[in-house]
Amino acid sequence: MQVAVVGGTGPQGRGLAARLAAAGVAILVGSREAAHAREVVTALEGKHGALAIEPATNADAIARADLIVLTVPFAHAAATLEANRERFRTGSVLIDVTVPVAFEKGVPKLVEVPEGSASEHLRRRLPEHVGMAAAFKTLPAATLAALDQPIDCDEFVCGDSLAARSRALELAGRIPGLRPVDAGDLEAARAIERMTVLAITINKRYRIRSARFRVVGL
Amino acid sequence: MQVAVVGGTGPQGRGLAARLAAAGVAILVGSREAAHAREVVTALEGKHGALAIEPATNADAIARADLIVLTVPFAHAAATLEANRERFRTGSVLIDVTVPVAFEKGVPKLVEVPEGSASEHLRRRLPEHVGMAAAFKTLPAATLAALDQPIDCDEFVCGDSLAARSRALELAGRIPGLRPVDAGDLEAARAIERMTVLAITINKRYRIRSARFRVVGL
Repeated sequence: MQVAVVGGTGPQGRGLAARLAAAGVAILVGSREAAHAREVVTALEGKHGALAIEPATNADAIARADLIVLTVPFAHAAATLEANRERFRTGSVLIDVTVPVAFEKGVPKLVEVPEGSASEHLRRRLPEHVGMAAAFKTLPAATLAALDQPIDCDEFVCGDSLAARSRALELAGRIPGLRPVDAGDLEAARAIERMTVLAITINKRYRIRSARFRVVGL
Repeated sequence: MQVAVVGGTGPQGRGLAARLAAAGVAILVGSREAAHAREVVTALEGKHGALAIEPATNADAIARADLIVLTVPFAHAAATLEANRERFRTGSVLIDVTVPVAFEKGVPKLVEVPEGSASEHLRRRLPEHVGMAAAFKTLPAATLAALDQPIDCDEFVCGDSLAARSRALELAGRIPGLRPVDAGDLEAARAIERMTVLAITINKRYRIRSARFRVVGL
C-alpha cells in the first residue's frame, strides 16, 4: 500500500504523514514544489528518526499512490484535483481531510458550499473511477504532531462507497490510539466538518489546542 | 429555580425530567393533556421513588417556569411556542432540545430548515423577551432513562446570549456525570443537531442504543 499525502507540507499533512509512517505505512509527502517536500521529509526524519517517507511533487504522489490523502487548504483543493485529473490510478481512493473554515471577528465559521460539505463538493470534481472517503477531519494538527503522545480519540470516516470507506477505515486504524468510526455515506461529512468547527470553537473558548472527540457507548 | 419540561411525556422529556429531579431540581412535567402528565409523573415516581416532579399542562408549565426545556417533537415545536406566546415569563429562558430527523430508507437524515438549525428556526418564533439556548440534543433517551447508570459524557450548550447560555450550562451541570461544554453562539446548533444524526447513524450501524460524545483534550 502506497499512500500519498497531497499538501503534505502543511501542519495537518505533516502530522498525518509522520503518524502513518511511524505506523509502518509507506508515505509520499507531496508538495507543489519537490524541494519543499524534501525539506519537510528531512525535518520530519530529523525529529522522529528514519521513516518510510519519500518526498514528491503532488502530481507524482497522486500518480504513484493507491490511497491519496488530500490535506491542502480547501481553497486550493478543487484546483489541485482538476490539475491532476488524468493522474489518478484506476481504483485509487481519495481521502478528503479538508474543512472550509473562515473566521468572522475571531469566530470560526464553516464556509457553506452548495453540495452541503467540502467532501461532496470535491467528489464532483474527481474522476468517476476514483473512490472517495472523508477522514482525519477532526484531528487537531497539534495532537497529530506530538508523536510521543497518544492520540486517544475517535475518527469519523464516511465515503461514497463501501469499498472507499473500508479502505479509509483500515488506514485510520493503522494509527495507534485512533479508533476509526464508520459514519456511513459521504453526506456524513456535513456533520463531521461542523464538528471540526465546533472543536476550534471549543479550543478558542477554553484556551486549549487539541479538542477532539470520543464516542461514548461504542 | 422552577424548570418546565414541555412535552415531558415523550422519551427524551421523561428522561430529562427524571435526571433533573433526581438532582434536586424542581420540575414541572408538561403535556398537552394534564391527565397524561399525571400518568407519567406517577410512573416516574413508581420507578424512581418520590421526586420533585409535578404534572401540568404545557401552557401552565410555561407560565410558571424560569427555565423551559422544549422536548416536543420538532414537527410540533413551532406550534407549541406560538400557542403559548403570551405565557412566557419575562426573563425566562427556553432550552431547545429538538432535532428534526427523518428516515430515508432507514437512513437518518437531518431535515433542513432555512435558518440553518432547529434552534435558530425556533428562536424566530419566540418572544424577544425570552432568552434561548440549545442543550441536551445529543443525549440518547435510552441513556437518560437508565438512572442507575452514569451518563458519562459531555453535553454541548449554545445560546443567543451569554445569560441564556450560562443558565443552560448551569442546569446541565446539575446532572451528575454530565459535563456541559460551552459551544458559543446559537449557530453552533447546526453542528450539534448534525451530531445527533451522526449518533443515530452510529447506533444503527453498530447496533447499539446510546452513542454519545466526549470531548478529549478538554
